[in-house]
Amino acid sequence: MRVDVLTLFPEMFEGVFGSSILGKAREKGIVSLNTVNFRSYANNKHNTVDDTPYGGGGGMVLKPEPIFAAVEDVERLAAEEFNRSGQEPVKPRVILLCPQGETFTQAKAQELSSERHLIFICGHYEGYDERIREHLVTDELSIGDYVLTGGELPAMVAIDSVVRLLPGVLGNEQSAVLDSFSDGLLEYPHYTRPPEFRDWKVPDVLLSGHHAEIDKWRRLQSLERTLVRRPDLLEKAELTAKERQWLHARQEQLKELARANSEESEGDSF
Amino acid sequence: MRVDVLTLFPEMFEGVFGSSILGKAREKGIVSLNTVNFRSYANNKHNTVDDTPYGGGGGMVLKPEPIFAAVEDVERLAAEEFNRSGQEPVKPRVILLCPQGETFTQAKAQELSSERHLIFICGHYEGYDERIREHLVTDELSIGDYVLTGGELPAMVAIDSVVRLLPGVLGNEQSAVLDSFSDGLLEYPHYTRPPEFRDWKVPDVLLSGHHAEIDKWRRLQSLERTLVRRPDLLEKAELTAKERQWLHARQEQLKELARANSEESEGDSF
Repeated sequence: MRVDVLTLFPEMFEGVFGSSILGKAREKGIVSLNTVNFRSYANNKHNTVDDTPYGGGGGMVLKPEPIFAAVEDVERLAAEEFNRSGQEPVKPRVILLCPQGETFTQAKAQELSSERHLIFICGHYEGYDERIREHLVTDELSIGDYVLTGGELPAMVAIDSVVRLLPGVLGNEQSAVLDSFSDGLLEYPHYTRPPEFRDWKVPDVLLSGHHAEIDKWRRLQSLERTLVRRPDLLEKAELTAKERQWLHARQEQLKELARANSEESEGDSF
Repeated sequence: MRVDVLTLFPEMFEGVFGSSILGKAREKGIVSLNTVNFRSYANNKHNTVDDTPYGGGGGMVLKPEPIFAAVEDVERLAAEEFNRSGQEPVKPRVILLCPQGETFTQAKAQELSSERHLIFICGHYEGYDERIREHLVTDELSIGDYVLTGGELPAMVAIDSVVRLLPGVLGNEQSAVLDSFSDGLLEYPHYTRPPEFRDWKVPDVLLSGHHAEIDKWRRLQSLERTLVRRPDLLEKAELTAKERQWLHARQEQLKELARANSEESEGDSF
């Protein structure tokens, strides 16, 4: 896979692209990660890439020319390289990181991982001229409902989640962890040595060697944790009828407990 | 504000902590950003920080000792520094980045921005020994429903969104952009020079100089964009009764349009 990132802050990517899984995927030749400073495509003597918005208002807006020129140049370079290596050139996905974008999910990461060329466009507190959205971009992504300074961190997040899905990137050890998400529930609690740390002990069942009991405990812990923390995930989770029943009963229990607690604390205040 | 990040990959943070808003906030002395490699707190000769899980299964689990030791050492150092500078030492928020955490939002960023000391713990494809969660951590955060290699990128995201809220970090230019999110709607389209780029023109209204018309156009564009892309945001948005009426009518129109399109394409297939 080829990944190009258009940014005014290429130095932000160095540490992340060089370390860990992304660094290894690069070394193995599974992915090529490039940054392009689109300021070098500014068509004016002051290298200006943004300007004030038509219609007034605060903030600056990224001009269309440098972004179009940079994307088209990257497409040309990529086509040449695909040709040189005997591969069919592809139309890239051109991805804009912005708060107005589709919320990024694991399904989107899966989808993008089947592409051969991704181009990410990172604005940096400026807005984007709408013509970039309408005529250049294939996908708009947001990584969550919070305000960030630029698209750089969201691009790194998307790239990490996509590249780790490419065949050969993850070792077995790491794939195993990935698998634990696949049933749509939150993970059960993990424990490792020492069996006792500052009076806090590992649950007996995990030291018992009874594998059926351990599996049962872990499944119930996953169910309970998901119920308490992310009940929204339960709708899509793969559950047996018995598990749904258990969850329903547990939910009633928890409500009862909450009611009892609030009555008790009301009592306290008298 | 003081921020400490516990990580096995401190080099990932260099580019991000040195550039842009975070770099500037650091230079101005508004925030101190530190990374701590918790491998240096491993209490064994092989510097091991993880181990296999009790009860079996794949993956590795971060041991409690190095993480507790690192957090406690950071707390001690921070207290000394607060004392030296004549400030009251504070209990830090100890934040674990993990998929099981509370989903990070702008409200959480606001909340954390009033703290004086944040400690982030980044695991890296390993799980965490549950005793870290139960007895050390004050907050568990997830930045979204996708799988990442480690907590490093989520920590950077949280830190960026928190630090930019600290007084004196953002210039006026950038604050203006932030403000445009505050009504709970997606932003309207932006345009800048040139007025015509490859046949694509800036909407006439924005060139008209009629400020009332421009405001109206922008508000309707925000409403429509939010309706189409993120209808979930409309529930909490600040809207007038007239706007709610307009949205309702527009929604019916869009539904009608979708029905007409699907009938047409059914017709085509005969």
